[in-house]
Amino acid sequence: MRTALPRVAALAASLLFAWPLAALSQTSADAAKKDVLPADVKYHSGPSPLAGVPMVESRNPKAPPMTQAEFDVARRIYFERCAGCHGVLRKGATGKPLTPDITIGKGTDYLKVFIAYGSPAGMPNWQTSGEMSEQEVDVMARYIQHEPPTPPEYSMADTKATWKVIVPPEARPKKKLNHFNIDNIFSTTLRDTGEVALIDGDTKQIINIVKTGYAVHISRTSASGRYLFVIGRDAKINMIDLWMEKPDNVAEVRVGLEARSVETSKYKGFEDKLVIAGSYWPPQYTILKGDTLEPLKIVSTRGNTVDKQEYHPEPRVASIVASHYKPEWVVNVKETGKTLLVDYSNIDALKVTEIGTARFLHDGGLDSTHRYFMVAANQSNKIAAVDLKEGKLAKLIDVGKIPHPGRGANFTHPQFGPVWSTGHLGDETISLIGTDPVKHPAQAFKVVATLKGQGGGSLFLKSHPKSQHLYVDTPLNPDSAVAQSVAVYDIKALDKGFTVLPIAQWAGLTDDGAKRVVQPEFNKAGDEVWFSVWSAKDKQSALVVVDDKTLKLKAVIKDPRLITPTGHFNVNNTQHDIY
Amino acid sequence: MRTALPRVAALAASLLFAWPLAALSQTSADAAKKDVLPADVKYHSGPSPLAGVPMVESRNPKAPPMTQAEFDVARRIYFERCAGCHGVLRKGATGKPLTPDITIGKGTDYLKVFIAYGSPAGMPNWQTSGEMSEQEVDVMARYIQHEPPTPPEYSMADTKATWKVIVPPEARPKKKLNHFNIDNIFSTTLRDTGEVALIDGDTKQIINIVKTGYAVHISRTSASGRYLFVIGRDAKINMIDLWMEKPDNVAEVRVGLEARSVETSKYKGFEDKLVIAGSYWPPQYTILKGDTLEPLKIVSTRGNTVDKQEYHPEPRVASIVASHYKPEWVVNVKETGKTLLVDYSNIDALKVTEIGTARFLHDGGLDSTHRYFMVAANQSNKIAAVDLKEGKLAKLIDVGKIPHPGRGANFTHPQFGPVWSTGHLGDETISLIGTDPVKHPAQAFKVVATLKGQGGGSLFLKSHPKSQHLYVDTPLNPDSAVAQSVAVYDIKALDKGFTVLPIAQWAGLTDDGAKRVVQPEFNKAGDEVWFSVWSAKDKQSALVVVDDKTLKLKAVIKDPRLITPTGHFNVNNTQHDIY
Repeated sequence: MRTALPRVAALAASLLFAWPLAALSQTSADAAKKDVLPADVKYHSGPSPLAGVPMVESRNPKAPPMTQAEFDVARRIYFERCAGCHGVLRKGATGKPLTPDITIGKGTDYLKVFIAYGSPAGMPNWQTSGEMSEQEVDVMARYIQHEPPTPPEYSMADTKATWKVIVPPEARPKKKLNHFNIDNIFSTTLRDTGEVALIDGDTKQIINIVKTGYAVHISRTSASGRYLFVIGRDAKINMIDLWMEKPDNVAEVRVGLEARSVETSKYKGFEDKLVIAGSYWPPQYTILKGDTLEPLKIVSTRGNTVDKQEYHPEPRVASIVASHYKPEWVVNVKETGKTLLVDYSNIDALKVTEIGTARFLHDGGLDSTHRYFMVAANQSNKIAAVDLKEGKLAKLIDVGKIPHPGRGANFTHPQFGPVWSTGHLGDETISLIGTDPVKHPAQAFKVVATLKGQGGGSLFLKSHPKSQHLYVDTPLNPDSAVAQSVAVYDIKALDKGFTVLPIAQWAGLTDDGAKRVVQPEFNKAGDEVWFSVWSAKDKQSALVVVDDKTLKLKAVIKDPRLITPTGHFNVNNTQHDIY
Repeated sequence: MRTALPRVAALAASLLFAWPLAALSQTSADAAKKDVLPADVKYHSGPSPLAGVPMVESRNPKAPPMTQAEFDVARRIYFERCAGCHGVLRKGATGKPLTPDITIGKGTDYLKVFIAYGSPAGMPNWQTSGEMSEQEVDVMARYIQHEPPTPPEYSMADTKATWKVIVPPEARPKKKLNHFNIDNIFSTTLRDTGEVALIDGDTKQIINIVKTGYAVHISRTSASGRYLFVIGRDAKINMIDLWMEKPDNVAEVRVGLEARSVETSKYKGFEDKLVIAGSYWPPQYTILKGDTLEPLKIVSTRGNTVDKQEYHPEPRVASIVASHYKPEWVVNVKETGKTLLVDYSNIDALKVTEIGTARFLHDGGLDSTHRYFMVAANQSNKIAAVDLKEGKLAKLIDVGKIPHPGRGANFTHPQFGPVWSTGHLGDETISLIGTDPVKHPAQAFKVVATLKGQGGGSLFLKSHPKSQHLYVDTPLNPDSAVAQSVAVYDIKALDKGFTVLPIAQWAGLTDDGAKRVVQPEFNKAGDEVWFSVWSAKDKQSALVVVDDKTLKLKAVIKDPRLITPTGHFNVNNTQHDIY
């Protein structure tokens, strides 16, 4: 076992939350069109990719002086590198709060050291890692002593201005026009190119490379499985019709400046009717029409934290999952620690049940029965189990350090019955949580076992009802051998420890790229597991397919178009929440 | 008929929204205790009653310069005189938006004229009315070109710090210890002294003068009728036990810096269990324990407007009414135009149904069946009828200019069946709206008749199931003869027009006080109507009781302690929503 090291969270921060210049230019271009700004907004011009993005600014006279050019540079770097963890308004989330009341007291010199060298608690070593210059570190140390500029709000008019129906519903196929087994298509994020690759799971051939927003965070399917929705970190949603001869975009819209989540209506009678997207900035969610992405309703998530009941100006929308029990979406609000059950049966009288869970909600998934939603509260080191049938909290469960389950993995533990499991960013453990209060009440919503894995820095783990294995990735582990392999457990013999599969090595990539192995994903049949071998933008990447029965290499998919593949989603398993 | 405008809105603004120095000093004292402020907050000191109230300030360099002393004075005057209509953040509500993007373009000279002389659209003539000096007008004209300072938030810790249980539940009477007919007690706001007078409706004797918050906006009773809750404009709630030998305060708490509404849980099984209070600043509502006022939950109302779906930072909570159909409160959010149905059956999984109605929601009441809540959207000139059984909007109804119904008046129209009615601040009409979709579907939620009254400036109108009369006050009419009398209609002969009752004259007050006649309120039996004759703080005021059958004077209540009586509420009629 290799431990995860202080650099894990640093890597997580830089890899998960970085904003590219391309995305920011787009932000800039769109925002410049807007006319919804208060008087005090200053428009900046200059070479910055954020040029034209209006921000409400207020300089703090006690903070060290900055030129306008320095301020602009710092603002851009902050949005790209820091906002994901610390929040746009710097109130803190995965990272610590960075408001001037705190930072001015620290002083420029202290802050420079902290930014340059990082900390064991997870702050990246931005200068010594080569990602910032000494000059940039100095600018950032001064910048964070000034008031955080506030990005503009994003109204219905802003949303509608970005909405495009590329192929209207009446011009779309009346039946499936291709011969793909669309249930077994994989949608793979090509992070740095702003695309997804649609890959035929049967033939392993690329069907299409579809232009999307930047660094698509997730792919979700409509209830029918016909439509695929992807959302970029730049808050752009693309809707892809899998019935087209060559599946491609039929509609798109932007729901804010930064986002992470999209989901569709899955309850009986509402199949394919509605879409919901959750934004990081502004903190809100948007409900859209399921066939065209026409924006219908925007709901703010600003409110009070679950613990101290203090107002928070930036409660970002993390994961969203559709309930199978009711016409509801489960919307997780990060900074306030609220899980919302949003009843979409009548959006003119929108009924929202607010369940206090725990702060810093992030990702999660359903248990095997789909009754319970299990969501990770990152920095609270907890999993909240929400009962979607009763509409209330079932239990808060203490787990390891910074749980990061993706959607988690469900399997039947030989001794404890059905469990849902999560890995962790901050330690090497995998927590197994009982999810069967009827037949295994003693184990229900308790950690029934803790497995030791290869190390910290795990993002995803996966199993399948037809598999006897549990796969755990560790892409953010600083040890490249750990980051480039996965641990596999035999569910029937969990105490025997894990087998290591050298996925990156199997990919046979010969250059010196980073080759992080990320996100095990089963095919529809549940007999293959796919992995992304994610290298740098200018290096070769690949997908590796493993035979689940034998744990042997089954296929390697290489293609010059497969640039920076990260997350991938099998249509059938996403459609039916099988994980 | 005498028309009300243009000074009506001016008077409404100055009378309804003024903040007294006493209340502000209290704000200041409380706020100084707090430790919840961001770093950039500046503490002011000096003679201002707002000294010590921390505000986040940001000066606009394009605005004309101000000294700190001028800024402090202007901030105080704005909060006292302007915020009620224009909003603390100056986004506009009853008054127009006053953000620097608008005001800087107008220039200081233009703004000075506007403030000094007012406008026909309702802006008070602050200088020519003698309420501001030329120097103060100059300061205000410059002040509103700077960024609006933001008052602090108000968290659970802030709320708890103000919570006092004066007589704990176990120390309270086990049975009624007095011989008052408590169903017929009147709770009368003594506006400028920060008190309510409890008056025995049978004997017309004052039972007690109870210390409360400033300018108590409303009195509400618990479902059982035992407890009386009052809320001041300074957001202080007092809970009065009517079973005590001498009814008095048993608990108190402050729920923000400014507030207007309080209500209790009335649904079967939840009687006397919970209290809700709606705040103007911060924009939120607080749920409290029904026996002690212990604060339990704070919910922000910040969100998007109903029409353009734009984010609004200051959506204030206007009226709140308890549903008799479900364990729900109807919470009306002014600036966003949302009517919320807040299900209090499980506040750990709080279920809120958000119904878009119309912007600038203010006051309203239930129809005679209690199924429909009728709420005025002031500047939208609409009444929204919300169906509390179905949990949805029944209808938006166009009425006169700036409807202001109080709780409205229900009676049976000889031709059109059950109607609910509203007067208006901005014109002399009374709109009668059909409320019986079963037996009178053609009239349901339509204005079935429009009566002409004495003039604009009406705040309240009232009837009673046992009365054949409809009483309409006009306290804000600039014509003192109109302000000092009420119009009475014979419900069976509405087309005959109204009779004028010279209420202030009947009071026999001999000094030169303003003597506005406000708020008809029936006794329990429905055979008497009470009016406040509201004079200045240093003049004599009175209550006048009219015999409903004969329309003759029945009694005048005078007492040196009855200083500035305004709103009053009969326990039984408030308890059972009879109006």
